[in-house]
Amino acid sequence: MPRSRQLLSLRWGDMDAYRHVNNVEVLRLLEEARVRAFGVSGAEGSPTLLATGTVVARHEVDYLRPLDYRTAPVAVDLWVEDVGGASFRVRCEVLEPDPPAVGEPRTYVRASTTCVSYDFAAGRPRRLDPAERERLAALADEPPPAPPATG
Amino acid sequence: MPRSRQLLSLRWGDMDAYRHVNNVEVLRLLEEARVRAFGVSGAEGSPTLLATGTVVARHEVDYLRPLDYRTAPVAVDLWVEDVGGASFRVRCEVLEPDPPAVGEPRTYVRASTTCVSYDFAAGRPRRLDPAERERLAALADEPPPAPPATG
Amino acid sequence: MPRSRQLLSLRWGDMDAYRHVNNVEVLRLLEEARVRAFGVSGAEGSPTLLATGTVVARHEVDYLRPLDYRTAPVAVDLWVEDVGGASFRVRCEVLEPDPPAVGEPRTYVRASTTCVSYDFAAGRPRRLDPAERERLAALADEPPPAPPATG
Amino acid sequence: MPRSRQLLSLRWGDMDAYRHVNNVEVLRLLEEARVRAFGVSGAEGSPTLLATGTVVARHEVDYLRPLDYRTAPVAVDLWVEDVGGASFRVRCEVLEPDPPAVGEPRTYVRASTTCVSYDFAAGRPRRLDPAERERLAALADEPPPAPPATG
Repeated sequence: MPRSRQLLSLRWGDMDAYRHVNNVEVLRLLEEARVRAFGVSGAEGSPTLLATGTVVARHEVDYLRPLDYRTAPVAVDLWVEDVGGASFRVRCEVLEPDPPAVGEPRTYVRASTTCVSYDFAAGRPRRLDPAERERLAALADEPPPAPPATG
Repeated sequence: MPRSRQLLSLRWGDMDAYRHVNNVEVLRLLEEARVRAFGVSGAEGSPTLLATGTVVARHEVDYLRPLDYRTAPVAVDLWVEDVGGASFRVRCEVLEPDPPAVGEPRTYVRASTTCVSYDFAAGRPRRLDPAERERLAALADEPPPAPPATG
Repeated sequence: MPRSRQLLSLRWGDMDAYRHVNNVEVLRLLEEARVRAFGVSGAEGSPTLLATGTVVARHEVDYLRPLDYRTAPVAVDLWVEDVGGASFRVRCEVLEPDPPAVGEPRTYVRASTTCVSYDFAAGRPRRLDPAERERLAALADEPPPAPPATG
Repeated sequence: MPRSRQLLSLRWGDMDAYRHVNNVEVLRLLEEARVRAFGVSGAEGSPTLLATGTVVARHEVDYLRPLDYRTAPVAVDLWVEDVGGASFRVRCEVLEPDPPAVGEPRTYVRASTTCVSYDFAAGRPRRLDPAERERLAALADEPPPAPPATG
């Protein structure tokens, strides 16, 4: 589907001394959702060119409510905006996978991350190639599927 | 089943600058396997008395082969040995969930962790209560199930 | 001094598979700078009421250039803005401690974090007390000291 | 001096939900002590051949007492044993930098880590070269200096 949904497991160690999932570890979940949405080659376990060749230029993260550790996974919905020559924006929501009987699913975090495609060998940004732009375009936002597919 | 098998997902961020899952992060996986095997109450997201009331006294960890990041989960098999008055030993193996057509499943890590039941309020070890000892005894080793159950 | 400067050490493990300090770990450095700037009681090693009683409501983080691991510490300059009834904004810069002979010191990250004073027992925001507001006011921005003091 | 002493800072985020430094994060401190003792080239911030070309084959870690977060650094004393053709053992102690007026300094953790020099390009262990063996030999144990030098 156009919008990627990743079901990610929390770890007990994501909690900090407040006994909630630490705000920094939430960024780790967002990173994992990006890597999985952009594809990794399980064969060698190394991310694809897209995943390896991007750096984070900016994060905007809103923490809407505390997230507590549990063994059940959380959902991270992800979509892509503003694909430019060498950058694109990734929007994420961390939320409950199962919508309630009434109303919206419980959302914990909303985030917007600006990624820049980067040539680590040359040490500078690089233009997205057509194949990458096509894959990113396929992650543009759309009304969420019903029922949500499990990425 | 007596022996607990947890299927745990790796995170891209578990890799270090060598592009392998870092040896320290492997301990994080073992911690997660212990917490899940010993039970957490999803209701409030806080580990049970057993999980919260134990500290690690000793780790012995053997890294048998490099573990690379991939999106497919790894299996962590766990069993309990030497349940004493206030301590017990947890044995773990990190391995491929699916056994090969021939031979043993690929094993990455073998570990033995000595846990001590601890009273954090009093700041000292405490005796395991009968219910805890019973739950630990249920995790004693046995021949691995065939096919492996997914904990 | 009004503006806090913390000198923080990187860890080799802060690097990710790209061999640069991972963008998520940068948030860990910002957390550490906040905890140290807001004061911890070394006696018992537990953060003060201010440090313990706050949650992060929002992060805005701009990554200006890659930060590589080195044993020399980095500086995190921190100041406080917009102290409200139950919230305040923390501005941070991660930069080289020693200014160059000519021009501005090399800056790696600029961040703005909205913190909310929180009553974990009651599970809701709480008003900042006068002593807390006074300490936060003392961290308001001012022209950086010359030479920078080591917080 | 033959024995390396590294003064390492804790991070508030090293604490887990028990409000003590997490047993896994202690391994991160040991890793940092090894990297610093074996030398990194600050110029480019990348570990030396020795530091980059080694993998951990085994950890034995004894947690002697809880370590609480504080802003003052802890000491990690490190020495090398049993330098073989392609492996060596690193012994570490995490302890208070300042010895008490009477008795031994407070020790939190004792660890022994078996490292194997590794050729990541070839994906197999490699022999230590003479320069590496010489540097490791220089880290052999000796009676601790009095007063302890700060590495």
